[in-house]
Amino acid sequence: MTDHSPVTALSQDECWELLHGQEFGRLAFHLAREVHIVPINYAIDDQHRIVFRTAEGSKLLGLTMNADVAFEIDQFDEEEARSVVARGRARQLERSEAEEVEQLPLRPWVDTAKFNVIAVEVDEVTGRHFELTRPWLHMRPADEED
Amino acid sequence: MTDHSPVTALSQDECWELLHGQEFGRLAFHLAREVHIVPINYAIDDQHRIVFRTAEGSKLLGLTMNADVAFEIDQFDEEEARSVVARGRARQLERSEAEEVEQLPLRPWVDTAKFNVIAVEVDEVTGRHFELTRPWLHMRPADEED
Repeated sequence: MTDHSPVTALSQDECWELLHGQEFGRLAFHLAREVHIVPINYAIDDQHRIVFRTAEGSKLLGLTMNADVAFEIDQFDEEEARSVVARGRARQLERSEAEEVEQLPLRPWVDTAKFNVIAVEVDEVTGRHFELTRPWLHMRPADEED
Repeated sequence: MTDHSPVTALSQDECWELLHGQEFGRLAFHLAREVHIVPINYAIDDQHRIVFRTAEGSKLLGLTMNADVAFEIDQFDEEEARSVVARGRARQLERSEAEEVEQLPLRPWVDTAKFNVIAVEVDEVTGRHFELTRPWLHMRPADEED
């Protein structure tokens, strides 16, 4: 038996593979002096940017005041979980840039008008893999200390 | 056919029901001048606080500098999605308060030492329900406008 940790770091390649493989994540951003978080549909473009659409007038346009953002995706089943967090700077794309993004598989899940394209230039990606114990799923008695 | 929106607001009761029904979410918090986000296991206590454990030395203790946080949970299948966002103020519980939390079903998924208990006093909860089109799942031709 090895005394290994149930939490291990994902490699950069593993993080990007997960980011490419999903299309739903959560964006945390500054709005004035507050931190906010919203679920978004996203795609990764060929510059390794996280791109997504947002509606005119969205709170996300608070990004024009403070570009600093964090973005998270995760996946889990009964045995294990993975979470990837990217940090970077967001900005609204100009029209010509936004048209390039139209070529991406940026498929809105919800059929509402979304007029602005935001791209997050990623400065840092970290990911973790968790071995889940979730003992109650296995009907084992609780073994918490008091 | 009704011209209803594919995005509708959840009631406060629906938001809290979802918060009670899950145990995995994402916390966005300030760390110095940056916004960060981490996945957490949580429980709701009888004061409607979001409580979770974190390790000594965690970045989350940046919360002691700026208590303003946002927290998100979501669930989705092929047809619909729900997302609930809570905003509030986080603080580390004192020992006596933390012991009360031990009575909660705050079951860490991962078997690592977690010494501090953080509680988020919720100021605002909002939730949305999304009807998903996800047209590619139904093999319909793309109908995006350019």
